[in-house]
Amino acid sequence: MVRVMREEEDLLSLIQKMFGSGKLRTKKMHRKRRYKTYMAPGSSNKKKTDDGQASKENFIHLCNPHLEKMKEDILYHFALGTGTHDFPTLFGDVKFVCVGGSPSRMKAFIAYIAEELGLGSPGRDYPNICAGTDRYAMYKVGPVLSVSHGMGIPSISIMLHELIKLLYHAKCSDITIIRIGTSGGIGLEPGSVVITRQSVDATFKPQLEQVVLGKTVIRSTNLDEQLAKELMQCSKEIGQFNTVIGNTMCTLDFYEGQGRLDGAICLYDEEEKLQYLKNAYESGVRNIEMESSVFAAMCNLSGVKAAVVCVTLLNRLEGDQISSPHDVLVEYQQRPQKLVGYFIKKSLGKV
Amino acid sequence: MVRVMREEEDLLSLIQKMFGSGKLRTKKMHRKRRYKTYMAPGSSNKKKTDDGQASKENFIHLCNPHLEKMKEDILYHFALGTGTHDFPTLFGDVKFVCVGGSPSRMKAFIAYIAEELGLGSPGRDYPNICAGTDRYAMYKVGPVLSVSHGMGIPSISIMLHELIKLLYHAKCSDITIIRIGTSGGIGLEPGSVVITRQSVDATFKPQLEQVVLGKTVIRSTNLDEQLAKELMQCSKEIGQFNTVIGNTMCTLDFYEGQGRLDGAICLYDEEEKLQYLKNAYESGVRNIEMESSVFAAMCNLSGVKAAVVCVTLLNRLEGDQISSPHDVLVEYQQRPQKLVGYFIKKSLGKV
Repeated sequence: MVRVMREEEDLLSLIQKMFGSGKLRTKKMHRKRRYKTYMAPGSSNKKKTDDGQASKENFIHLCNPHLEKMKEDILYHFALGTGTHDFPTLFGDVKFVCVGGSPSRMKAFIAYIAEELGLGSPGRDYPNICAGTDRYAMYKVGPVLSVSHGMGIPSISIMLHELIKLLYHAKCSDITIIRIGTSGGIGLEPGSVVITRQSVDATFKPQLEQVVLGKTVIRSTNLDEQLAKELMQCSKEIGQFNTVIGNTMCTLDFYEGQGRLDGAICLYDEEEKLQYLKNAYESGVRNIEMESSVFAAMCNLSGVKAAVVCVTLLNRLEGDQISSPHDVLVEYQQRPQKLVGYFIKKSLGKV
Repeated sequence: MVRVMREEEDLLSLIQKMFGSGKLRTKKMHRKRRYKTYMAPGSSNKKKTDDGQASKENFIHLCNPHLEKMKEDILYHFALGTGTHDFPTLFGDVKFVCVGGSPSRMKAFIAYIAEELGLGSPGRDYPNICAGTDRYAMYKVGPVLSVSHGMGIPSISIMLHELIKLLYHAKCSDITIIRIGTSGGIGLEPGSVVITRQSVDATFKPQLEQVVLGKTVIRSTNLDEQLAKELMQCSKEIGQFNTVIGNTMCTLDFYEGQGRLDGAICLYDEEEKLQYLKNAYESGVRNIEMESSVFAAMCNLSGVKAAVVCVTLLNRLEGDQISSPHDVLVEYQQRPQKLVGYFIKKSLGKV
C-alpha cells in the first residue's frame, strides 16, 4: 500500500510527467531556467554590482504549478493575503529570515537586530505583522524578518509553506533563512551552540519521511555547508561561547521520542535510554530538537540557503529535566541570536 | 532495524518484564488495582453519593514508574513545578479539561464557560496560569481547565505529557478531556461540527505510529463511545447547528499532508487530490485536523475519558483556501465551545 519515493532521484521525471516541461522549476531545471521562468515582472534578472559586473539574483523556487492559476492567495495562518496586502511593498527588501519557536523570543530578536544594525531607537515597539491571528507572530526591521513557528514539524511546516509563498509573492531574492532555537545537547556542556551539519531522524538517517496522499515520500534534509562554515567563523570571531558543527536529531516528540524518563508515559529504563543517546552521539548527533528536518527539506526544495543554530539547554547524558535557573536559561537563549545577529551584520558589511 | 510493536497486545508483558509486577498500572491491571496503587495520600478511594451509595473515583493512570523516584517535577513548557507550586490546591478540583490550538480561543472559552456556570462577572479577567512561558496558555474557573496546545501532533503531545502529570500530581479524579478545535470537512456544509468516532491516520487506519528509542510503536486511537453519544445528544438539545459523529483524519501537515493544491510544494494534480479525499470519505472520514490521534492515544493510555469536537471551516471537496469572512469564521469557532459548554453545564446538573 505504501509507496516510498526518494524525491531527489524522481522529482524531475515526476513533474515532467504530471505537468509537462517548462512550467515548474526543479532543482535541476533551476540552474538553467530559474531566472527566466520566475523573474519578478518588471524586474531584471541581472543587476550590476559596484565594480560593474553582472550578478544573478536567486529567486524563490516554488514547487507548485497550481498557484499560478489562483487569483488570490490567502495565507490563513499569517492572516495575510495577496488580495488585501501588497507583498512586494511590505516584504520585497527582505534578505534574512530568522525563525524560532517562541513568539516572544522572535520579538526580542527583532529589537536586538534593529539595535545591532543601527535601525532601532530606545523604547521603539515593533508591531506584529500577523496581529490578526495568534498562530504565529512576525516582525520586520530593514532586511530582516523574524517569524515564530511554534513547536514541532507540523507547526513549522505550516509556517514555512506560507512563508515561502510570501517571499515568492513579494518577489524577494537572495534569501537566507536561519532557524535560531533551543535543544537538548548530547555530550556538550549546557549553553553550547550547535550549528547543524545534517538534520537526521530518530534512526540517525539524514531524511524526512512525509505522507502525501497516503503515500510515504522521503526527502533530503541537507543544509548549506558553506553557510554553516561562515556561521562557525562568526562564532570564533565573537569568542563568547562554545560552538560546534554537528548533526541534529529531529524528533516528533519531546518525551518518549527523545528518550526522556520524565514524561507521562515511559516504557523503557535508564540503561536503554543512555544506550540510545550514546548511539546517537556515535553517529555524529550533538543535539536534539523538533523542527530541523522539515525546515531543511522545504528550504532545499525551494532553493533557499538555510541553517539551523540551536543552543543546548542541558546535557542529555546527565539528565532530562531543564532545571537551570531562569536567568541562566535566558542568557543561553540569547546565544543563537548573538551569533546570527553578528552574521547578518557581517554580511551587510557592518562589522 | 525498525521493530513495530502493537501496544495493546504487548504492553502488559513488556512492563512486567521491565519493572516487575505491581509498580505500574496498565489498562488491564488498572481495573483491579488503580484505586489502591494510585490513591491520593489522605484521600479515600470511595466516596458517598447523595443517595448513600459508595462510588469509585477514577484517578489518572500514569504509565511511568520513574516519576515516583523524582523529588521534584518541573513541567518546563508550562513554567510550573511541584517544587514551586501546590498542585493539589491549585488544580485538585478540576473535572473538565478543554484543550484547543489557539491561546486566545482558550481564553475566550474560559470567559464563556464562567458565564455559563454562573461563576463569571462582567469584565472579569482570567489570568494565564502559564504566564512564565509563551509555549502554552492555561486558564481555570471552578472545575474547568482550559489549555492551548498549538498546532500538530508534537505540540499537543508535549502539552499532554505535562497536563497528565499535572492532573496526577494534583490528585485529580474523574477527569473528562475534550479537544475543541477547527478542521477541514469532507462532504459537509461548512460550519458543521464533527464529534470524532475514531481518529485515523493518513491511510485511514485508527492508529498512531510513534518512534520511541528509534523503534516504531503503534498505538490505538479509540475515543470514548459513550461520551461521543452524550455530546451528540447535547447538540440535538441545543439545535443550532449541524453535528455528526464521524471519523477524523489526523495528518502531520496542513498542505501536502491533507492533499491541498495551494501550499509552497505540490507535486500532484486536482484529480489525484479529489480521489484521495473521496477515498477518505468512503472510509468514514468526515473531517481532517492535526492533533486527534496522539490526543486519543495518550488519553487512552492514561485512562482518561476523552472526546474530540471540531467545527469544519470549509468543505475540502470544494476547495482548499479558508476564505469565509472573518465574522463567519469566528461564529463557526464558537460552535464547539457552545456544545462543550452545554455538556459541562448538563454534567453539573445546571441545565
